[in-house]
Amino acid sequence: MSDIKPNHSALTEKPGIIAPEIISASSAGNIQHFRRIQPSSDELISGILKGDITALSRSITLVESTNTIHLAKANTVINTCLLHAAKSIRIGITGVPGVGKSTFIEAFGKYLTGLGKKVAVLAVDPSSTISHGSILGDKTRMEELVKDKNAYIRPSASGETLGGVARKTRETITLCEAAGFDVIVIETVGVGQSETAVHSMVDFFLLLKISGAGDELQGIKRGIMEMADAIIINKADGDNIKKAQFAKMEFNRALHLFPAKSSGWTPTTSTCSSITHEGIPIVWETIEKFLDLTKGNKSFYSKRKEQNQYWMLETINEQLKANFYKQNEIQQLLESTKKAVQNDEISPFAAAQFLLEKYFK
Amino acid sequence: MSDIKPNHSALTEKPGIIAPEIISASSAGNIQHFRRIQPSSDELISGILKGDITALSRSITLVESTNTIHLAKANTVINTCLLHAAKSIRIGITGVPGVGKSTFIEAFGKYLTGLGKKVAVLAVDPSSTISHGSILGDKTRMEELVKDKNAYIRPSASGETLGGVARKTRETITLCEAAGFDVIVIETVGVGQSETAVHSMVDFFLLLKISGAGDELQGIKRGIMEMADAIIINKADGDNIKKAQFAKMEFNRALHLFPAKSSGWTPTTSTCSSITHEGIPIVWETIEKFLDLTKGNKSFYSKRKEQNQYWMLETINEQLKANFYKQNEIQQLLESTKKAVQNDEISPFAAAQFLLEKYFK
Repeated sequence: MSDIKPNHSALTEKPGIIAPEIISASSAGNIQHFRRIQPSSDELISGILKGDITALSRSITLVESTNTIHLAKANTVINTCLLHAAKSIRIGITGVPGVGKSTFIEAFGKYLTGLGKKVAVLAVDPSSTISHGSILGDKTRMEELVKDKNAYIRPSASGETLGGVARKTRETITLCEAAGFDVIVIETVGVGQSETAVHSMVDFFLLLKISGAGDELQGIKRGIMEMADAIIINKADGDNIKKAQFAKMEFNRALHLFPAKSSGWTPTTSTCSSITHEGIPIVWETIEKFLDLTKGNKSFYSKRKEQNQYWMLETINEQLKANFYKQNEIQQLLESTKKAVQNDEISPFAAAQFLLEKYFK
Repeated sequence: MSDIKPNHSALTEKPGIIAPEIISASSAGNIQHFRRIQPSSDELISGILKGDITALSRSITLVESTNTIHLAKANTVINTCLLHAAKSIRIGITGVPGVGKSTFIEAFGKYLTGLGKKVAVLAVDPSSTISHGSILGDKTRMEELVKDKNAYIRPSASGETLGGVARKTRETITLCEAAGFDVIVIETVGVGQSETAVHSMVDFFLLLKISGAGDELQGIKRGIMEMADAIIINKADGDNIKKAQFAKMEFNRALHLFPAKSSGWTPTTSTCSSITHEGIPIVWETIEKFLDLTKGNKSFYSKRKEQNQYWMLETINEQLKANFYKQNEIQQLLESTKKAVQNDEISPFAAAQFLLEKYFK
């Protein structure tokens, strides 16, 4: 478009017009005032502990911020909230798009609030940065739950890396627990390694399926079935009931071929309908049985400790890698070294050594 | 045994006897002479390319050395060998102890040398450092194969970390391929993450099983079944044949529930007997079909490139972590920080940040 004359552009500065100050004295004053009314971390903490949703939302916004001052404040809030974490259960839910995750969570969530429980629904969706919130972004998909005063729905945090998104969700769990939520549901669509991340922050991992012709597991990534504590065949209504029953049997058979879980829990399968609500109570009964077993044999608590440690080590690992790959010299050499390795011109180990020497020198 | 008098110990130094120099002048001369006659890297390379087993073994010893001069020499040899890698197939074999891995490899190896192929058998066994070579260490377990001039058996390298053991085996593959071996078999017993390591260095991954009452997969770790390109039910002889056939059917059913492999390969199941040799040819036929398919659709080559890159990135990651955790300050703070994280006194992310700040400052 080189034939457009610069003079015709609306962006051209007209001679003789003085550009205004970017921030006027009055708006600067407004910003300062707004900053002053930002609640202190003590105010946020006491708000959260009272179950105040505004304090909770504001604290989550701090957790999601990239501003280091906000993050420091978030850390203060979180570390105090950790000491006040209620006796919650964290449930991970995954399943391919089309399986009916939102309608299931709506039906399941309403059932739980009906039992007098407070339910928070979060999400880990690293793709939401690109798609502007593909899961939970559109709250209208959970029309009933969103109006329920005992439910709190928060879309996936955005971020460039799964590690970043996962950290934000993991810390949000802590805040929700301190705010008195009994059940924390974390949804994921299974982009990249997001199931592994969610699996590592929940007590109970639920795989949602629908019955289908032929390959019952189509679209489900390798390893997911082994993570599941329960497989729920959704959309078991109308003409689908028989097929769903058959799928349940197939999955049950397959699950029993897997090695036993260290918690002693044997994964279950069941069918449900988010429309007729048939089978929804069974999901919660299953989770209660799981809690009885794993709190009884203490594996519930040891798993949480392991998960905490996992996130510490994983964060260290992520940061060490991030620091390495952001170095100019490494960035300049990485692609050509990768190519040499792929083409068998240099051994992968010699190539790694070569880059590491540049980094540590 | 505190009642044994020190004077009675054979280790007690007798007064009046002068201890000899630890290294005498003559043995020092011998060592120097021995060092002089160590072949140069050029000699090793030309020996390997001629298929000379002594040159191959000596080069592998360099790869396994902890001496940096030896390692530099090993790197020179490997980087030249990479350019001469023959058209080999790398086969990983895993299975719990008792499944008959050694007898299977003996029968399979003999079958292949009978077809005129040169077969190298290596192992990844990080436990061998403690158990002094639990797999392949006792070569007499493969009596026939060890005498075969077209077979080369090398026990697992030892090392403190799986990463170290895996590196040595991975580089040994390159040397064996340059020495003209057509089939490289890598055995593992599945200690820690060793199957993942082996899976990432082979073209074809074979899970060896026996039929058993009840839980057919007992003892097999999570995720292993999904890695398998073929499941072989071993010991299908005598009274066992029916049970083995049944197990084959069960596994086949389970395998079809898994998602398709990106190579387009559908994992197979078959039975075999390492005693009657029934079913051994089928294993090789299966692998040939696999090669036809994956070389046809090029996934064979793209997988090798991916594996090369994986080992480079993995080695970088391992070294970055090793460097972090060996710092004095980190070592001093790590345990107490871990404990604080486990007990919810500090968030895992805040804890990671705390340690990383110490490291990078």
